[in-house]
Amino acid sequence: MTASHPATGDAGPAVLLLSGGLDSTTLLALAVRDGYRVHALTFRYGQRHALEVEAAAHAAHRYGAVAHQIASIDLAMFGGSALTNSAAEVPKNTTDNASGSGIPVTYVPARNTIFLSFALAWAETLGARDIFIGVNALDYSGYPDCRPEFITAFERMAALATRAGVEGSAPVRVRAPLIDMRKSEIVRLGLSLGVDYASTTSCYDPDISGRACGRCDACRLRLQGFLANGTADPAAYVTA
Amino acid sequence: MTASHPATGDAGPAVLLLSGGLDSTTLLALAVRDGYRVHALTFRYGQRHALEVEAAAHAAHRYGAVAHQIASIDLAMFGGSALTNSAAEVPKNTTDNASGSGIPVTYVPARNTIFLSFALAWAETLGARDIFIGVNALDYSGYPDCRPEFITAFERMAALATRAGVEGSAPVRVRAPLIDMRKSEIVRLGLSLGVDYASTTSCYDPDISGRACGRCDACRLRLQGFLANGTADPAAYVTA
Repeated sequence: MTASHPATGDAGPAVLLLSGGLDSTTLLALAVRDGYRVHALTFRYGQRHALEVEAAAHAAHRYGAVAHQIASIDLAMFGGSALTNSAAEVPKNTTDNASGSGIPVTYVPARNTIFLSFALAWAETLGARDIFIGVNALDYSGYPDCRPEFITAFERMAALATRAGVEGSAPVRVRAPLIDMRKSEIVRLGLSLGVDYASTTSCYDPDISGRACGRCDACRLRLQGFLANGTADPAAYVTA
Repeated sequence: MTASHPATGDAGPAVLLLSGGLDSTTLLALAVRDGYRVHALTFRYGQRHALEVEAAAHAAHRYGAVAHQIASIDLAMFGGSALTNSAAEVPKNTTDNASGSGIPVTYVPARNTIFLSFALAWAETLGARDIFIGVNALDYSGYPDCRPEFITAFERMAALATRAGVEGSAPVRVRAPLIDMRKSEIVRLGLSLGVDYASTTSCYDPDISGRACGRCDACRLRLQGFLANGTADPAAYVTA
């Protein structure tokens, strides 16, 4: 009940991008703990599997979002990514998370720009000053739109794009508290917040019953994150 | 057939935001004249009338776009604008285009940010260096996302959001050649390019047969633009 315990105050409304994966579910638990009235926003965007939308709805309810919207957009119409192209192969057992050097084939062009733009629309309508996004620069350094300089540039653009930019009121802040954390640190944070990771989805290529493949970049990073905390990942995997 | 005649060269692929209204149709004719292989992008976004989507398809074909995509997004889910809220009244016969001082009720939160984000996704997939948008700062100074400083900030953000930002290749340029033009100048340009304005839509509140109301901000601006050129607007109006 003191200022040092952020759970007690009302930090105001916020929009939070919620995929239903490990990072954004941890982010949700963190923002709710810190007193934000979280308006969670999830996208159906032509991804090859929609299990994560179900996981997002579950998380929004379980961790105390005050509202949850699911927006349908078709990023597959533009092509350009293994994640939105049913014919493309998701890489497995590669030597690093960037699938070799450069940008992973799982990169979806301008995805975070589009997601943040929708979040900005909702934030402006709500009068929310904060947008939360669970990007992570250390583990996903190959994605251009996961880097701190991108987040800063989006924030600057957003300040000019909205009423605040004309009326001189406080602009929206884009908060990415996980950006400098290792996967093991994110798992540790989530466990301390009571997150049940059994129902989060991270796999790029799950089987039809939703079990993770254990071999794609996302699975490998996640498994290492739990291993570093001396605990097992409670999610269901095809491979042991 | 010289460098001074831009119609003769291939200026490369470009993505162009096409609403089907007067400004974006003029922009399309201009970009095609200048040698761009225009990929036109139109949105269905929960607006109260979809006639402009038909007008956009017509214009894309007539003025030589090499491709036309229509993306469906639901901006009405967030509320906040008379243009996406069927219960809100579109203002008529107001004293200026901003409907009094400040930001018009027809402003849709973050709309141009969202539109440009989709255009960015397509541009990156195509390898296009140019995105065209028909914003106009003089006539729409009340819209925060029609100002030159917004366009510049979006361009800076886009350079960091995409492969170009990591790989060091040339970033996308956001071109807004109409931004400093008066409506009368845009009409003059379009007439010189052979644009048939009979089939463009500008009205915020047309009747069910598509006739413009003649009284909303968009109609008043447009009618003045033709008047200043000493010619009549060929579009159909409810009022003479």
